Amino acid sequence: MLRSCATRLRTLGAPPAKQPGAVWRLFSSEKVIHKDYGLPNPSWSKDLRLLFDQFMKKCEDGSWKRLPSYRQNPVQTFKEFQTRFVDPGSVTKEEQMSKAQQFSRSLEEGLGFEYVMFYNKGEKRMVCLFQGGLHLQGVPGFVHGGAIATMIDITTGMCALAEGVAMTANLNIDYKKPIPLCSVVVVNSKLSKTEGRKLFISCDIQSIDEKTLYTSATALFIKLDPDKRLT
Amino acid sequence: MLRSCATRLRTLGAPPAKQPGAVWRLFSSEKVIHKDYGLPNPSWSKDLRLLFDQFMKKCEDGSWKRLPSYRQNPVQTFKEFQTRFVDPGSVTKEEQMSKAQQFSRSLEEGLGFEYVMFYNKGEKRMVCLFQGGLHLQGVPGFVHGGAIATMIDITTGMCALAEGVAMTANLNIDYKKPIPLCSVVVVNSKLSKTEGRKLFISCDIQSIDEKTLYTSATALFIKLDPDKRLT
Repeated sequence: MLRSCATRLRTLGAPPAKQPGAVWRLFSSEKVIHKDYGLPNPSWSKDLRLLFDQFMKKCEDGSWKRLPSYRQNPVQTFKEFQTRFVDPGSVTKEEQMSKAQQFSRSLEEGLGFEYVMFYNKGEKRMVCLFQGGLHLQGVPGFVHGGAIATMIDITTGMCALAEGVAMTANLNIDYKKPIPLCSVVVVNSKLSKTEGRKLFISCDIQSIDEKTLYTSATALFIKLDPDKRLT
Repeated sequence: MLRSCATRLRTLGAPPAKQPGAVWRLFSSEKVIHKDYGLPNPSWSKDLRLLFDQFMKKCEDGSWKRLPSYRQNPVQTFKEFQTRFVDPGSVTKEEQMSKAQQFSRSLEEGLGFEYVMFYNKGEKRMVCLFQGGLHLQGVPGFVHGGAIATMIDITTGMCALAEGVAMTANLNIDYKKPIPLCSVVVVNSKLSKTEGRKLFISCDIQSIDEKTLYTSATALFIKLDPDKRLT
């Protein structure tokens, strides 16, 4: 929830997609190089690498764009978000926030969420290529329903982001088939309707060959009013 | 999803609630002591400890029971689950599975999901006391919507478990207010209706003082038929 907002703010300080990392100043005396996690690493399976290459090809004509992904928000993003949407009394300490990490990137490489997202502006579609590691287990051998919900929340959130800063109001998820651990699946989301500040986004998770529908979901996002406080 | 099933199978090998850990044989030559994560650790805030103590008191007359919680399933649980519900062709290797971890316990102590669950059999209620760490961040300062969905999935799943081995068919989540990182909230779930193999469970997340409703949700679980394969 609210991820799209954070992501949008985060992208203010983000590098172009082709740049492997970004340098942000956390404190006046400290520089931190932020790794872009939306790029292949040794834990990626052959399937994930092949899909990644296919989508990178689609990016060449500009119809699709790969989204960079970071573990931490730059402090200016944190400050801007807190200033715009959070009451001063409930602002988290900057020092503490510097230790915070984006949930979907907080697990060790290969053991948690391995994914990369691509956006098609013309079609208002966000596609996420996802490989669920061994630390995402629900029941033996399968990805946890909460981890699946996380991927749906992230992918639909990024799809909403293209329309403006928004927050998740509802996620409705149908679990149809369990997703085997360490397999690669495709999360497809699309803006289906807008009504004023409401954004309706559909999402499904399929096998690479599109023969298996694992999950289908709908998400409702509400565009944020900068004058409206969250806390 | 399917967590309740795994949990039930896991509890086959689980120790009584008061025992701090369990010893399981992973391989013929290897013994592993499994820590019970449903007990206080140094990362627990004063609020979480106070609530824990209150519920432990409620356990004294037997109306409530604390649930133990582990990071890994014993291999017999894995084998039993795979044998009962998974086609032989798609069984994950035992050696690989020994490295798998329960998603909600896979993050470092204090940085991820800190929680303990209590069950009231008479009321068919499962309560989860939850403190979301700094690595569960969605937007700056708040718990990720996927992490919230995970807690709802786990709590309703454990509530369903009391009725039998079941899998999540649907989660419908309304995000009403963002949950601040490092705060303690109470996840309340209750079996509201059963229709044949369908279990309808309601769930909400509130502040300790019950003045703030952060999230409300419904979950549908389907009791599993041992003859029906998942893959």
